[in-house]
Amino acid sequence: MPVTTQQQPSYTNGQLKNIAQQIRHWIVASTGQAGSGHPTSSLSAVELMTSLFFGGHFRYDVETPDDAANDQLIFSKGHASPLFYALWAATGAVGEDDLMSYREFGSRLEGHPTSRFRFTEAATGSLGQGLSVGVGTALSAKRLDNSDARTFVLLGDSEMAEGSQWEAIQLAAHYGLSNLVGIIDVNRLGQRGETMHGHDLVAYRDRVQAFGWRCIMLDDGHDLERVEAVLAQANSPCDVPTMVIAWTVKGKGVSFLENEPGWHGKALSGDKLEAALDEIGTPPGRPRGKLKLPEGLERHETEAGKADPISYQLGDELATRDAYGNALCRLAGKYPKLVSLDGEVCNSTRSKRFRDAHPDRFFEMFIAEQNVVLYPCDAVSTEALVDAMADHDGIAYLRTTRGDTPVIYDNDESFPIGGSKVVRCSDDDQVALIAAGITLHEAIKARDLLTEDGITARVIDLYSIKPLDHATVRAAADETKHIFTIEDHFPEGGLGEAVLTSLSDHPTRVNCLAVRKRPISGSPEKQLEAQGLSARPIVEAVKSWIDQGR
Amino acid sequence: MPVTTQQQPSYTNGQLKNIAQQIRHWIVASTGQAGSGHPTSSLSAVELMTSLFFGGHFRYDVETPDDAANDQLIFSKGHASPLFYALWAATGAVGEDDLMSYREFGSRLEGHPTSRFRFTEAATGSLGQGLSVGVGTALSAKRLDNSDARTFVLLGDSEMAEGSQWEAIQLAAHYGLSNLVGIIDVNRLGQRGETMHGHDLVAYRDRVQAFGWRCIMLDDGHDLERVEAVLAQANSPCDVPTMVIAWTVKGKGVSFLENEPGWHGKALSGDKLEAALDEIGTPPGRPRGKLKLPEGLERHETEAGKADPISYQLGDELATRDAYGNALCRLAGKYPKLVSLDGEVCNSTRSKRFRDAHPDRFFEMFIAEQNVVLYPCDAVSTEALVDAMADHDGIAYLRTTRGDTPVIYDNDESFPIGGSKVVRCSDDDQVALIAAGITLHEAIKARDLLTEDGITARVIDLYSIKPLDHATVRAAADETKHIFTIEDHFPEGGLGEAVLTSLSDHPTRVNCLAVRKRPISGSPEKQLEAQGLSARPIVEAVKSWIDQGR
Repeated sequence: MPVTTQQQPSYTNGQLKNIAQQIRHWIVASTGQAGSGHPTSSLSAVELMTSLFFGGHFRYDVETPDDAANDQLIFSKGHASPLFYALWAATGAVGEDDLMSYREFGSRLEGHPTSRFRFTEAATGSLGQGLSVGVGTALSAKRLDNSDARTFVLLGDSEMAEGSQWEAIQLAAHYGLSNLVGIIDVNRLGQRGETMHGHDLVAYRDRVQAFGWRCIMLDDGHDLERVEAVLAQANSPCDVPTMVIAWTVKGKGVSFLENEPGWHGKALSGDKLEAALDEIGTPPGRPRGKLKLPEGLERHETEAGKADPISYQLGDELATRDAYGNALCRLAGKYPKLVSLDGEVCNSTRSKRFRDAHPDRFFEMFIAEQNVVLYPCDAVSTEALVDAMADHDGIAYLRTTRGDTPVIYDNDESFPIGGSKVVRCSDDDQVALIAAGITLHEAIKARDLLTEDGITARVIDLYSIKPLDHATVRAAADETKHIFTIEDHFPEGGLGEAVLTSLSDHPTRVNCLAVRKRPISGSPEKQLEAQGLSARPIVEAVKSWIDQGR
Repeated sequence: MPVTTQQQPSYTNGQLKNIAQQIRHWIVASTGQAGSGHPTSSLSAVELMTSLFFGGHFRYDVETPDDAANDQLIFSKGHASPLFYALWAATGAVGEDDLMSYREFGSRLEGHPTSRFRFTEAATGSLGQGLSVGVGTALSAKRLDNSDARTFVLLGDSEMAEGSQWEAIQLAAHYGLSNLVGIIDVNRLGQRGETMHGHDLVAYRDRVQAFGWRCIMLDDGHDLERVEAVLAQANSPCDVPTMVIAWTVKGKGVSFLENEPGWHGKALSGDKLEAALDEIGTPPGRPRGKLKLPEGLERHETEAGKADPISYQLGDELATRDAYGNALCRLAGKYPKLVSLDGEVCNSTRSKRFRDAHPDRFFEMFIAEQNVVLYPCDAVSTEALVDAMADHDGIAYLRTTRGDTPVIYDNDESFPIGGSKVVRCSDDDQVALIAAGITLHEAIKARDLLTEDGITARVIDLYSIKPLDHATVRAAADETKHIFTIEDHFPEGGLGEAVLTSLSDHPTRVNCLAVRKRPISGSPEKQLEAQGLSARPIVEAVKSWIDQGR
C-alpha cells in the first residue's frame, strides 16, 4: 500500500475550541437525555481528547477501522463514554441522532463502550484494564504487524490505585513500548470524594518514572495550546513508553459542577440541565473535524503453512503439558499469528519449546497473574485441542496435567470444541461414568473392575466442559439408569454442575464425585484416593447405588 | 499484663552461624526426605531469617501464638516453607521428627504453609498475597490493638511483578504503617530463569521508594554482621513502612546449586543429597535459639454492648444497600472489632454512614479490586444477615441491591446463615419458585398472577445461596411437581446450580431461569424483562410447563 499523499487536516486553535464546545454540549445533552451517565468525568478530558483527535496526533481512517495502520484509542476510564461517543460524532462518523440514543435499551452506544460500537477497541468500564489492553495492542503493532501505529490510553486518576496498572506499566517498560502513550486525567475527584493523591501530579510522576517511563507534566489540561505542545512532545521519538500526567477539573465548563464532589455519575435534568447547556453555549456552524490519516503500511503477510501430523503411539506415556508444548511448535507454521504469553513458568507449561523455536512470538509476562474450559486426558487430544483453540475466535482455556498419562487416542482422531468422546460403550450400559483429564483414566480402570463384577458402564471423556456436548450426555441419560460424574475439581462450577444443568429436566439421576475435602499436600495418587476419585472409590460408589436397589 | 522483665536472649555471631548451618541442613534433609519442595529458594534467605529470629529483631512468645503482642512473620514466598519450618524447629517449638514428615500425606507441615501448622500467620503459596496480609496485620496492630507489634514479610523477587504487591505498597504508605517491614530476597532466579530485574537492587529500590517507603539496601544477604546491622536499622523508628532489599544467592551453601538455573522446586536425592549434606556439614551440639519475648500489652478491651433492635415497617421501600449501611452503624457497639473496608465506593455501598460514625474503624482501600454468598431481598433480612456475618468465623459475602425494595419481613424475624424463608405456601402447591434478592419480589408477583389462574405456587427466599438450606429445598421437591429457580446471575455457579446440586438425586425436575443473554445497558426493569426474569415471563414459564402436561 502506498504512503498516503492526500492533504492532511490542520485546524486553528479557534476551530479546536469550537469543536471542544460542541463536544461539551453533546456530553451534557446526551447524558441529560439518558437520565444517567458520567458527564463530569467526561468534561475533564474534553481538551485532552479534542487536541489528540483534531490536533493531528491521532492517525485513523474511519473508513477502515480494522486496519493495522490505524492508531488505537482506549478509554480505560470507560465511564467517560459520553466523551468517547462525542469525539466520534465530531468526526462525522456517528450521527447526532445516534448520540442522543445514548444508554437507551438496545442502543449501540452503551453506558460503557462495548464492541457493539464500531470504534471501540476494548470494552472497558471495570477499572484498571485499559492499559493492559494497550500494552497488548502496542506490542502487537511493534512486534507482529511491523506497524508504526501508536496506542493512546486515557486513564482515570482513581484507577491508578489498581495493581493491574502497575503490572501493565512494568511490562510496557520491559518491552520498550515507545509506541504507547498513557494520559492520566488527574481531575482529583473519584466517586466518593478525593482520590489518594488528589491533584498531586508529582506523586504520579515519581511512581511512573521509577518504573522506567518518560513522564510529561501538563499543568493545565484545559489550555488547548499547552495540551497541543505536550501531545506533540509525547509523540516525539523515545525508547520508552510515555505518560502524560494532566491537571484537569472534573465537570469543567459548567461552573456549578467544577471541582465539586457529589456529582460523580449523575446526569443533569430540568433547570440544571438548561443552565448547563446555556453556560456551555452553542458553537457557530456545526463544527466537525477530520482525523489525520495513517501512513500506509508495508504488509509482510506470512503465508499460512501446513502443520506436521500428530505422531504418538497408543499407550505412550506423556504428560498433557508436554503435548501442549509440542502442539505450539507443530502449529506455529499453520497459524502465523499464534503467539504465546507466559508467567515465568514456561518450563512448567512447556511453552519453553515454543519460546526457543520462535523467540519473536513468545512474550514473557512475568508473574502478573491478574492480566474460559478444555481438559484433555492424553497427548493426542491435547495436540488436537490446541489446534482447535488456535482456530477459535475468542478466548479459550485449556487445563493440562503434570504427570504422564497414556495415549488412548489415534493420531487422526478429531476433537472439536464442544464435543466429547465415548471411550467405552455397550448396548446395555447400566451406568455412565463421565470424566475428563486425569479422572478419565480412573474411570476407565473403574469400568474394567465393574465389568469383572458383571456391571456394565459407559465411559465418556467430556474433554470440552464448556461448551458441553449435550447430545452425548443426554443419550447417556436416556440409555443408562444412573450417571456418575468424576472430576478433580471442587463441585461448584465444574464438570458435575455442567452435566446437572444439561440434564436438569431429565429423570435420570446424576451423582457427582468431586473434591469435597480440603486438599492437603501429597502425591497425585494419594490426592485422588483421599478424595474418593480413584478407580476403587468410583467402583464403590456405583456398587453402593446398585445395592440400594435404585 | 506487666512489661516483661525476664532476661532476653542474646547470641554471638558464631552462635548464629551454627544455627544457620543447622537450618541449612534441615532444609536440604527435609526436602530430600520428601522428594519434593523448594530447597534452593529456602537456602537464599537463611541468614536473613536466622538473624531476624535470633538476632533479637523478632519478638514472639511461642507459648501464646495468638497474643496480639507478638510480632508477625509472613512468608509471602510460601514455597520457601522448608526454611519456615526449620526456623520454628530451631526455636525448639517444632520437633526434628515433625520436620522430617515434611510434605508427607497428612503432615501438618504442608508444601506451602497452611493454618494446620501452629505458627502460620497466613496461608501463602499463590504469589503476591503476603504483603497484602501484612498490611492487614500491621493496620490491625496499629489502629485496633494499640500494640507495638511489628509485621515482617519475606518477599520473593519474582513475585514483585504482581500488581497486588503495588496495591499493598501504596496502601501501607498511605496508612503510614511504620510497623511493617518487607524483606525482598533478591536471589535473581525465578522458576524458569532470571527475573525481570535480576540482581538489580536499584530497580526495586527506585520503585518502592517512589511509593513512599524507606528502603534499606543490603548488598550481601549472607553476611550475618551486615544482615544484623540492616535489620536493626529496619527496626529503628520511622514514619513510613520499611523495605529491606537484599542481594542473595539462590541455593546458597551448596556449591553446585548456587546461582544456577534449573534447580527451582527440585529436591536432592542419592549422591547429590549426600554431597550437599556433606558440604553443609553438621554444627557442633544441637544449636537452638530462643526468640526475644514481646513487651506486655496494655489491654483496652472494649466491652461488647447491645445493638438497637431493627425498626422497619412492613411495606417500607428501601434499597438493601441502605439497610447494609444502617446495619453496620447499628451493630458497631455489639461488635467492637467490626471494621469496614471500602474501594472508593462508600457512597454506593452506604458504608459511608459507618465511616462518618466510626472513622477509626473505617479503612479506605481505594480502587484496588484484587485485594463466597448471601443475597437478601429486603431491609430487615439485610440487617439480620449483616449481624450473622459479623458473628461468623470466616469470610462471608453479601450482595445488596441498588434500587428500593419493599420490606416484607417483621423486624424480629431471624435469618441464620444457611437458612431460607418460605414466603408463600399452601398444602397443595403445584410448583415451587425459588429466588433471592430482586428476583424474589418478581416471584411473589408471579405467584399472585398464577393464583388468579388457579395455579398454586410456593415461593422460597433462598437468601443464603451458600451454604444452602437443603431441608427446605428438598421438602419443596417432595411436595411439588416442579421447581423453578429465578436468579439475576449467569447460570454458572449461581442459585440454580446450587439447587440442582442439592437435588441431583431427586426425581423432581428443576428449571433454571437465569441471565442467558448478553446484558446490555438499560434500566433494571428492562433488564429483568429482557432476560425473562420478571413476573410475566416466570408465569409464562410455569404455564408452558403445565401446557406440556408434564
